[in-house]
Amino acid sequence: MTPQPNPQVGAAVKAADRAHVFHSWSAQELIDPLAVAGAEGSYFWDYDGRRYLDFTSGLVYTNIGYQHPKVVAAIQEQAATMTTFAPAFAVEARSEAARLIAERTPGDLDKVFFTNGGADAVEHAVRMARLHTGRPKVLSAYRSYHGGTQQAVNLTGDPRRWASDAGTAGVVHFWAPFLYRSRFYAETEEQECARALEHLETTIAFEGPSTIAAIILETIPGTAGIMVPPPGYLAGVRALCDKYGIVFVLDEVMAGFGRTGEWFAADLFDVVPDLMTFAKGVNSGYVPLGGVAISGAIAETFARRPYPGGLTYSGHPLACAAAVATINVMAEEGVVQNAADLGATLIGPTLRELADRHPCVGEVRGVGMFWALDLVQNKETREPLVPYNASGESNTPMLAFATAAKAAGLWPFINMNRTHVVPPCNITEAEAKEGLAALDAALTVADEYTQ
Amino acid sequence: MTPQPNPQVGAAVKAADRAHVFHSWSAQELIDPLAVAGAEGSYFWDYDGRRYLDFTSGLVYTNIGYQHPKVVAAIQEQAATMTTFAPAFAVEARSEAARLIAERTPGDLDKVFFTNGGADAVEHAVRMARLHTGRPKVLSAYRSYHGGTQQAVNLTGDPRRWASDAGTAGVVHFWAPFLYRSRFYAETEEQECARALEHLETTIAFEGPSTIAAIILETIPGTAGIMVPPPGYLAGVRALCDKYGIVFVLDEVMAGFGRTGEWFAADLFDVVPDLMTFAKGVNSGYVPLGGVAISGAIAETFARRPYPGGLTYSGHPLACAAAVATINVMAEEGVVQNAADLGATLIGPTLRELADRHPCVGEVRGVGMFWALDLVQNKETREPLVPYNASGESNTPMLAFATAAKAAGLWPFINMNRTHVVPPCNITEAEAKEGLAALDAALTVADEYTQ
Repeated sequence: MTPQPNPQVGAAVKAADRAHVFHSWSAQELIDPLAVAGAEGSYFWDYDGRRYLDFTSGLVYTNIGYQHPKVVAAIQEQAATMTTFAPAFAVEARSEAARLIAERTPGDLDKVFFTNGGADAVEHAVRMARLHTGRPKVLSAYRSYHGGTQQAVNLTGDPRRWASDAGTAGVVHFWAPFLYRSRFYAETEEQECARALEHLETTIAFEGPSTIAAIILETIPGTAGIMVPPPGYLAGVRALCDKYGIVFVLDEVMAGFGRTGEWFAADLFDVVPDLMTFAKGVNSGYVPLGGVAISGAIAETFARRPYPGGLTYSGHPLACAAAVATINVMAEEGVVQNAADLGATLIGPTLRELADRHPCVGEVRGVGMFWALDLVQNKETREPLVPYNASGESNTPMLAFATAAKAAGLWPFINMNRTHVVPPCNITEAEAKEGLAALDAALTVADEYTQ
Repeated sequence: MTPQPNPQVGAAVKAADRAHVFHSWSAQELIDPLAVAGAEGSYFWDYDGRRYLDFTSGLVYTNIGYQHPKVVAAIQEQAATMTTFAPAFAVEARSEAARLIAERTPGDLDKVFFTNGGADAVEHAVRMARLHTGRPKVLSAYRSYHGGTQQAVNLTGDPRRWASDAGTAGVVHFWAPFLYRSRFYAETEEQECARALEHLETTIAFEGPSTIAAIILETIPGTAGIMVPPPGYLAGVRALCDKYGIVFVLDEVMAGFGRTGEWFAADLFDVVPDLMTFAKGVNSGYVPLGGVAISGAIAETFARRPYPGGLTYSGHPLACAAAVATINVMAEEGVVQNAADLGATLIGPTLRELADRHPCVGEVRGVGMFWALDLVQNKETREPLVPYNASGESNTPMLAFATAAKAAGLWPFINMNRTHVVPPCNITEAEAKEGLAALDAALTVADEYTQ
């Protein structure tokens, strides 16, 4: 589809938005949302006919890009036959989505509780863990994001938690491994891993193992910075959970469904959690859907005792039909393999080459289609390019970077002092090269803010 | 569409469901979900070719019935052009849905924050109220339901809260008016209303007005029993909120979008809340969608200060397109008026007539397409037909009633000792009569359990 300028419609869409739409995470009068006219594959365009290559996958969810014809057709077909049906019934799309997901989840995570998105998946995973163990607390990591509802945002370890945190009842934050900005004074991955596990076990000991229902971790933390855990860390957490009878929850809302070049990031580390949350990539966000994959032991807890939770749209047929089609498309078209291959052969190597050339790039981290560039003022000191949680003028260098990227036709993902390279998992080699060239140009602008 | 038996497919759907789908609010091995093959208008059917008239509207959300062709077409069209797009942008379906909703919400509730459903709408409404006032507590009613996430279920005033209630931090429950089972020893609606307001004001005084961010009420409580508040009650709550600087939140997730014969139940009482939550009827549940309508004063709080909340699928284009089509269909086809008219001329009078004839019917309550029959062992003592939160054998009378209804071709809504009559708002007179006749037959079975 070729973008056709249509500024009058764009102005009307924008005016109604400004009059009536209240936006997420925003000061409503300080934002200026771009009116988007259309999207296809790895691109979208505005009403002035400007086209952007999307290196964000929306909010890291359009893992098969925009408007995949097979998934669009599946949605249309399901809409024609059974758009919606209540959760207490068995319906074909729901059964089939659960089967396809269970087929791919690691270990014995064979039951699926469907939610509307990632936040409520986390809410329910925590409830299951608390009732399964009879214990109150949940341990989660600083540098994490687990969702926007009250409990999920309190589990979150970034500034989005602060305004809703009136003491985080039942939530304890610990530090996960991150060598580049080590909290453990480590100099090697091995050291970082061992110390992070020691830190976690000490935290468990001092909080009291008998008070801890669950440890929740993003398998690879996403918005917080794509910190790939060192070899052995997740297996070590698994062992601690087994030792102390704690439920291990992996949050794969962002990392799951192909993003890392595996169906689930847990597969990269050969680790099996007790509960795994998902959303986003499960149907490329074409219809709101999330869920929790549940181990045999936890399912057994609720075999003859009611699970006290639910929602009207649990297993929504239209959302599940989109999941069935998305999973089948990913399998048939080798989307997961494409993410692994292009990540290993093109994106990773090119980003490392950019890091060598650009003084602003402190570190490159990632795997598959899941990469972060940690931007710094100075490679020696590793001082972030902008302060933690910067806004307004102190955020100028990142805004300048983003403006330069957009001018070069690339829509970038920005969080604090980082840009993430998280395109659709089925991006082509040519598209990826185009985006990396634009990124190169934008980094040259960011370089001007280094010292 | 005529139901065609297809038991082989039904068995496969059921088998995959039992193997992989974890159901809401259920002991997984004690349920036996019916496999549903199709649905249209006010009916659905199973794989054995049995057809049911749906007096539940799913979970009280298919306000325009199943598979309305105009809304199906709108979903298909939106899927063809822009299935999904991230929330930070302005997109046509999102803008238009917000505009159509804001046009219908009472007073100055002119900004719309979109969520995925009712629970997260309540989560965000509470956050807005807390940040707007700087106060921690929220008052909600016993006999209420506000959603399944941790905070929403703690606001809830029914047994679904218990398993997740570890002290209800920041939540205080009070009693709302309900003359038939008065907590205030009242004998008239006027007395019940005055005493309920006195009870609420005393609760505010003893909790401390300066600690209370919000009072949240379902305009007409839904699953808890469809207790239409007496004239003056909601206006009285509004006055108390104004007097003490408390945010008034009306939860219209179930009561909104035509259910009561008005666009919003608040219109029945001429009351304007500060925040209003919605979901379900907004697009008949064809695609998951919920939201919060926000007053000018609260929107102003977040005009130049970021609102600390959000979600990936806020204002999802496919969900918003379904809302636009649903609202337009409701307007063009007089669906809201149909609910008002049939409620006043047929359903209300027939239910009252059934109550006169059947010893098991203690009270009929409701308006529009939103009715409850309070079933009792004895009309004098008003002893409920089954105990509060009954399960297993003690629930036999209600199960017998439900079985009889299904045998008569009617799928009934059951909660504790009540059946609710909550069909699609565009049900025809003939369909309503058919359902009421089946209800009559099933009540005869319930009569056997009276004393």
